[in-house]
Amino acid sequence: MQSTVSSLLRPALAAFTKHGGQQRWMSSKNGLKLPNVAIAGVTGAVGQEFLELLAERDFPFNNMKMLASARSAGKEMEFKGKSYVIEELTENSFEDVDIALFSAGGSQSKLYAPAAAATGCIVVDNSSAYRMDPDCPLVVPEINPHAIKTQNKKNIIANPNCSTIIMAMPVFPLHQLSPIKRVVCSTYQASSGAGAAAMRELEQQARDWVEGKPYTQDIFGRQYMWNLFSHNSKVDPDLLYNEEEIKMMRETCKIFETNVPVTATCIRVPVLRAHCESINIEFSSPVDIDTVRRTLQNAPGITIIDNPEENQFPEPLNASGKDDVMVGRIRSDPSLPPGIGYDIFIAGDQIRKGAALNAIQIAELLLE
Amino acid sequence: MQSTVSSLLRPALAAFTKHGGQQRWMSSKNGLKLPNVAIAGVTGAVGQEFLELLAERDFPFNNMKMLASARSAGKEMEFKGKSYVIEELTENSFEDVDIALFSAGGSQSKLYAPAAAATGCIVVDNSSAYRMDPDCPLVVPEINPHAIKTQNKKNIIANPNCSTIIMAMPVFPLHQLSPIKRVVCSTYQASSGAGAAAMRELEQQARDWVEGKPYTQDIFGRQYMWNLFSHNSKVDPDLLYNEEEIKMMRETCKIFETNVPVTATCIRVPVLRAHCESINIEFSSPVDIDTVRRTLQNAPGITIIDNPEENQFPEPLNASGKDDVMVGRIRSDPSLPPGIGYDIFIAGDQIRKGAALNAIQIAELLLE
Repeated sequence: MQSTVSSLLRPALAAFTKHGGQQRWMSSKNGLKLPNVAIAGVTGAVGQEFLELLAERDFPFNNMKMLASARSAGKEMEFKGKSYVIEELTENSFEDVDIALFSAGGSQSKLYAPAAAATGCIVVDNSSAYRMDPDCPLVVPEINPHAIKTQNKKNIIANPNCSTIIMAMPVFPLHQLSPIKRVVCSTYQASSGAGAAAMRELEQQARDWVEGKPYTQDIFGRQYMWNLFSHNSKVDPDLLYNEEEIKMMRETCKIFETNVPVTATCIRVPVLRAHCESINIEFSSPVDIDTVRRTLQNAPGITIIDNPEENQFPEPLNASGKDDVMVGRIRSDPSLPPGIGYDIFIAGDQIRKGAALNAIQIAELLLE
Repeated sequence: MQSTVSSLLRPALAAFTKHGGQQRWMSSKNGLKLPNVAIAGVTGAVGQEFLELLAERDFPFNNMKMLASARSAGKEMEFKGKSYVIEELTENSFEDVDIALFSAGGSQSKLYAPAAAATGCIVVDNSSAYRMDPDCPLVVPEINPHAIKTQNKKNIIANPNCSTIIMAMPVFPLHQLSPIKRVVCSTYQASSGAGAAAMRELEQQARDWVEGKPYTQDIFGRQYMWNLFSHNSKVDPDLLYNEEEIKMMRETCKIFETNVPVTATCIRVPVLRAHCESINIEFSSPVDIDTVRRTLQNAPGITIIDNPEENQFPEPLNASGKDDVMVGRIRSDPSLPPGIGYDIFIAGDQIRKGAALNAIQIAELLLE
């Protein structure tokens, strides 16, 4: 049994330095041990984004292992100019792996993450399987990086739901100003949250419409083009909220480490890869708008787009492919006493900060 | 100067009867005086819907006058099997008109509605020009039909903003259960609200995308396809809410004839002709969910679509072309004490109930 990555890599920590606000590996040829990395679910939308981000951020690694279902095993995939053969994801995939980035769905995570963790490998899991497990940290690096150390009892670190991460980014720094009494959130979610095939189906529906053909609807089973609909996760028969909404309510409390009452309405709109959210915040005590604006401006991972004259605000297009969550329409809610209520509108790349980027940031924390 | 339509048509009232929940003209050849009707802005999306609804509902009329800008004057338009020549909208268009349905934009309403009203003609105005005028009723027939009599001092009756009407339809009957303390609303608005040319531009952008061409953006000046954006009305430099949002806040209070604090976030989504709204309601005292559901089921002009098992809820497609506002996702908000908060999701045809239908319903009230 190997020791954990943290101890394996502790000597390497000194080789890190802050550069341009981002950690960069300064010396990968000094004989320091670099982690062996595996990606489980490498052929999916998030899996592909993992590769792009690992390259873009110069994530230090020794070996890279590409894992997917038996269907994809044997195919080749290029990464940083080198060709890799995709291997089938099994219990035995992780013997020599230090960090495993999982994005192969909840059932695969439940099957294989414990086996990976048992070898001493640290799993960063994108699925919902371990998010509410009290022995697994649920981490947004800008908010609760400490949880990686204090809550990790299984070598599995959970990456929150995409809508939760994107909402938490502006809400948490505001929560530091005055405890948040209540959040009312309505989402405008992209097809990417349902995977690469769902994005292709939406695009195909646009072609179908132009060509006057019946809509292709293998994934969603409905017309998505020129339409929007309540999020396609299961609705809890008692609560009547769907799984996506319940994730936003419960995960936010775990990440903030306090009870933050959230109500959410999750809607899919015909957009490809960035989620938007209309967020109404109720503070427990008054905060003036300049403080709200300044706090959001200074918060990590946030870019303000708030130009009423030009009607320039966060939208899927200006968030797509970006690391930061875009925040705008910052205004004082007149339906509550002065300073108590605020409305904001935000946009975040669902595949980046909503999934792959947040997981890679967690992996970067593991190197520290 | 003619007497008003109401007095002109009073003898005709007896000829009305309830049939299938809808008023139908039973005897138009009995020598009863029928109103002369004019449509100002007949070539627009709402103007065209006026014609469709007048035919569909067998609205009783004597003469019909089609009015539009000089650009369209002289063109012919068919209505109920008869051809009409479009005339230019001027101050002199209304001498022999009893009911004028205006949907030619706020500036045209300001120019010509007073002239029409001065002849004794009753104007039903779709623009925002007279909505907050204390001498003009602002009417949703299911909510405040009495205002037509009690508040009319100018012969101009204002039709509310589309998003306001659609929101008011389910919120008002709930307000009867327990006064509503606060509403948080986020909209998902169709291109139709910006007119017929805007709908065509969105459709053209779909073709542009499929053909790999640059996006046509003469109306919105931006990419709308695969995107969404904050409503394209002017943002108030002090309040920081846009005109659409402010309409929802202010008009709701006038229609309900009480202070109902509303905060709204208005967003345009790539959908053609139905608006959706995510509405969070805070009651002043607890109401149980069965009462909420039963009240909405029994409310006029509402159809419940709330099937969690099949994930069937209100969406633009099932509201388009329908008279009723679709209401679903009815659930008790866990971020408030039991019975105090509810979330609902609704969809309403922006051109029908959001505009033309509501105006025609007002005109039908004038006949009573």
